[in-house]
Amino acid sequence: MKKRTAPAPSAPRQSPGEVCNVAILGFGTVGSSVAKILCERTDLGLRVTHILNRNVERKRVSWLPESVQWTEKIDEVLASDARIVVEVLGGLQPTEDWIERSLSSGKSIVTANKQLIARRGKALMALARKNKQQLLYGASVAGGVPVISGLQAGLAGDTLFKIRGILNGTCNYILSRMENERLPFAEALREAQNLGFAESDPTEDIDGLDARAKLAILARVGLRCDVPAESIAAQSISRIEAIDFEYANQLGCTIRQISWAELKPATKANSKKTRAARPTQTVQQPPAEVSLFASVGPALVELSSPLARVEGSQNLLVATGTYGGETVFGGHGAGGHPTAVAVVSDILAIARSSQTDGGGPDQSLVHEVAVSNDSTSKHYLRFYVKDQPGIIATLATILSGYGVNIDAVLQEPGHPKRKLPFLITLQECEASLVEEALGQINALDFLVQPCLHLPIF
Amino acid sequence: MKKRTAPAPSAPRQSPGEVCNVAILGFGTVGSSVAKILCERTDLGLRVTHILNRNVERKRVSWLPESVQWTEKIDEVLASDARIVVEVLGGLQPTEDWIERSLSSGKSIVTANKQLIARRGKALMALARKNKQQLLYGASVAGGVPVISGLQAGLAGDTLFKIRGILNGTCNYILSRMENERLPFAEALREAQNLGFAESDPTEDIDGLDARAKLAILARVGLRCDVPAESIAAQSISRIEAIDFEYANQLGCTIRQISWAELKPATKANSKKTRAARPTQTVQQPPAEVSLFASVGPALVELSSPLARVEGSQNLLVATGTYGGETVFGGHGAGGHPTAVAVVSDILAIARSSQTDGGGPDQSLVHEVAVSNDSTSKHYLRFYVKDQPGIIATLATILSGYGVNIDAVLQEPGHPKRKLPFLITLQECEASLVEEALGQINALDFLVQPCLHLPIF
Repeated sequence: MKKRTAPAPSAPRQSPGEVCNVAILGFGTVGSSVAKILCERTDLGLRVTHILNRNVERKRVSWLPESVQWTEKIDEVLASDARIVVEVLGGLQPTEDWIERSLSSGKSIVTANKQLIARRGKALMALARKNKQQLLYGASVAGGVPVISGLQAGLAGDTLFKIRGILNGTCNYILSRMENERLPFAEALREAQNLGFAESDPTEDIDGLDARAKLAILARVGLRCDVPAESIAAQSISRIEAIDFEYANQLGCTIRQISWAELKPATKANSKKTRAARPTQTVQQPPAEVSLFASVGPALVELSSPLARVEGSQNLLVATGTYGGETVFGGHGAGGHPTAVAVVSDILAIARSSQTDGGGPDQSLVHEVAVSNDSTSKHYLRFYVKDQPGIIATLATILSGYGVNIDAVLQEPGHPKRKLPFLITLQECEASLVEEALGQINALDFLVQPCLHLPIF
Repeated sequence: MKKRTAPAPSAPRQSPGEVCNVAILGFGTVGSSVAKILCERTDLGLRVTHILNRNVERKRVSWLPESVQWTEKIDEVLASDARIVVEVLGGLQPTEDWIERSLSSGKSIVTANKQLIARRGKALMALARKNKQQLLYGASVAGGVPVISGLQAGLAGDTLFKIRGILNGTCNYILSRMENERLPFAEALREAQNLGFAESDPTEDIDGLDARAKLAILARVGLRCDVPAESIAAQSISRIEAIDFEYANQLGCTIRQISWAELKPATKANSKKTRAARPTQTVQQPPAEVSLFASVGPALVELSSPLARVEGSQNLLVATGTYGGETVFGGHGAGGHPTAVAVVSDILAIARSSQTDGGGPDQSLVHEVAVSNDSTSKHYLRFYVKDQPGIIATLATILSGYGVNIDAVLQEPGHPKRKLPFLITLQECEASLVEEALGQINALDFLVQPCLHLPIF
């Protein structure tokens, strides 16, 4: 078995009739969907040559050609004539190692691995460029919805400054079910798990860790900001209750898990809250003094907003640019087949081009900026209290002490006095001010549980 | 003045720091927006070198660099070192001639000219390929919404079979205004004209000729079907009245101008209605026996559909694929800046690549198919009659003679007996059957005007 160690020369553009060989690492839901499309779409000029999986024998299927090599050894793939390696294994290791070795062996990579791209994308893209290979990751965000190519190519001519989206189908499924059927959170989650929309450990989805990795990728591609996913604030949807949808509806809103990234002029207030590095010397054009607001979590959105109308496991992205205004991309954000469409689209982009730019935005144009998790909006505060006189007065006094103005108070009848829910909405102000006030409020003894605080977008 | 006549060699991929020269033909709304973006986005590595316009002196602006050459002569552009020629002149001639000469002079083309691309795109793309240049036309459909690149690259891995969209912002503006304000058609049109959304001669927009050129382009890009725009049925929106929105709302619908193209298995019924050529020998893989349903016109759409929620001059496209299901693209379909974003995105795609594939889908994969304008749906029939006994019975008898079943009859009170409006909805059946029945019905003497027939999608 010959093992190539030197970088292979850049592969030429595929000629008509020429076949491009593809190896697939991981034969789960997405991997087998990719293989299926490549088998059925014989017109694409793509051929599956290798499938790698642990315990590969139990994965073998009869619908793939006999010529396909089923293997557990990455070295066999590296030594093969596969030009493109599809990575749909997931996880960080040995995946990263295998991608590096594939790139160094003169193979281009197509991956759906959001966590790896969010954390190590920059280094991997540099390695791809060094080896004159491509690394594409369209499937890492929003499944079949072509948001990466949309931001990177379709809207390349605009200057984007805001990205808002519903990037996690599991959360959206749960919240839609809570909204439409008034299910408690736990029941909607169980339903999602039974249907295979949610993992048995749903933390990544529910707590927003999945969505913030995707948001970090989009911030890089669309806003050209290098942001560690961990610097993006993530709030769990697990504290939302059916009653919150009732209150939200009364306000003309619903509740969705919103991922939001927006470039803003840096102010003293938010540069104090800097968590990421300041602009570095690698920046070609010094960016204007900007900071990036980035956050993932449940929020109230107006029923008339396209974000409010996303149902079930669908995804939606709204990109806002200086010249083109708002552009919307929507569709199936998960599932084997839609995600496989994104993978195959990336395979075709590599097979049909001779571009060797690593697949990312021009690195010289990506800047590191300060990340702020603070934003100005109206706010939704939902309390559970032991009823007693003077509650509203006490809360109003504390809030006004922080310069925060109450917009409305809403209390639904028919709840027990020992655990009485009610709602306060606040006029537009900074979220950090509200959080400071809540630090004091949550210590009050009439509160049955800490206040739920959501922004109203 | 040196004039290049031989095809120039394929331009190499732009190196970092290298500047790509751009000539702009036409300095109207879109042309000046393109120049503005290229001036402001100094990071893109693009430089405007020439602006061509009739009576160019009256176009001269102070915000462009002094180095820009203002000219009325295409020969100056052809002889220049501009690598990319942006065509935003519109019209068929001399535009086509100038594009051909630019391609032959070794320049790539970016155009927003939907009529030219719909009619002559195939030949122009062949010429581009022959000269190892690119011809991109992302701005020709849906303005700033990246639908062409979305279908061609983002969804390349899917097998699309259906495209539905709102592709004409003028019609959508008029219909939204009629819906929201119950304006008569003429008044909504006048408003659109006053706001600059509609031309003084609005025929192209109103009668669907603009949208069907766009649909022909999308059918080629997304469905790989070569369809002459004239073979697509186009119905005008001018016969819609405010009362139709009242009836539509009662059916849980609204009215929009819908462009629809869908690949269907060819049946004897629709191959009889063939208007375009049958599959030709140039087809690499003989397509399955399919025909393409394609039509543009007003239709009832359910209020819950994304198509129903498109307001004002926005555009929306829903592409449906075998693997990925429905993907939605939406945003500003017109206006100088959004259209310019699409133009600049195409310029960047050329500047950043060395691809020389003419910019279109692989020609060997585009097939000519029979076009059918017939489809199966529910139907909306709105009548104005001189009231007399037996009208419903007469209509029901004629309809049932064609095997068409009535679903509901709706009559609003408060209208004069000499011009009484009422509505019949039909159960699902072929549109051609309904049209045959209407041939007989429209001759009845109690009809004040011909019946308005809309599909219910």
